[in-house]
Amino acid sequence: MPRIDIGAMEWTGGWGYPAPFAGTVAGRMRKRLGNAVGLDQFGVNLTRLEPGAASALRHWHEREDEFVYVLDGELVLVEDGGETVLRAGDAAGFKAGVADGHQLVNRSDRPAHYLEIGARSPVERAHYPDDDLAAVKDERGFRFTHKDGSPYA
Amino acid sequence: MPRIDIGAMEWTGGWGYPAPFAGTVAGRMRKRLGNAVGLDQFGVNLTRLEPGAASALRHWHEREDEFVYVLDGELVLVEDGGETVLRAGDAAGFKAGVADGHQLVNRSDRPAHYLEIGARSPVERAHYPDDDLAAVKDERGFRFTHKDGSPYA
Repeated sequence: MPRIDIGAMEWTGGWGYPAPFAGTVAGRMRKRLGNAVGLDQFGVNLTRLEPGAASALRHWHEREDEFVYVLDGELVLVEDGGETVLRAGDAAGFKAGVADGHQLVNRSDRPAHYLEIGARSPVERAHYPDDDLAAVKDERGFRFTHKDGSPYA
Repeated sequence: MPRIDIGAMEWTGGWGYPAPFAGTVAGRMRKRLGNAVGLDQFGVNLTRLEPGAASALRHWHEREDEFVYVLDGELVLVEDGGETVLRAGDAAGFKAGVADGHQLVNRSDRPAHYLEIGARSPVERAHYPDDDLAAVKDERGFRFTHKDGSPYA
């Protein structure tokens, strides 16, 4: 059955960043809608941000396009050039390789929900301009490192 | 600016099927959100179906995963096994290669809106179990043919 029983799915905490950064996404919960029906060419998550939470540390991807569509609530998109408020019905896309870090932050007093869609490249690197962090995906799998490539303990 | 000014975008009629089938999607209008910000690894459309319109002829893809999320209105998902009503907040995914044709039909008396996300394979074939139609994408581009491969006039 291709219909996804979203109501029956549990909200799950995202994969965490290394300890110094984990608090940023402590209030981020997801339902992995695409995975639930076996899709593997792109990811589609229904994501909930509690007040104070962010979608991610500010980052950009070398190879994977990203797209977000806000379903309810109010989120602030933070980029190099400043901030943009996104509300229900607003969308934004982030072309792979554009070196402008982005994140969504919930600065409001109620939860916000959005859909996030991302391509899946077998090899990838994400850059975090504000933090000593890199995300690497290659034949060894996925891992976070310091910017110099050394592992997090 | 990654934010998409959806309100400023025009609704556009989809690419049409060959003449015998064009009426099915006459009431289908799209805003190509992903294209608007240069994404090319997957497509994201905001699609509007007027009463009586369908998302497509019933079809399935050999190589491209598809996903839909209903924003408002009521749509009927038609597949081999029967019909499923989808309303705001419902989603469905269609894994590439699963030979079960699907379409969304608006049988209600008001428009419905949904997001449709699709992978983009350079080579693809779509199957239309109810109609004498095939869709082919290869090094020669995209085209519709009869099931036997002959072209539509």
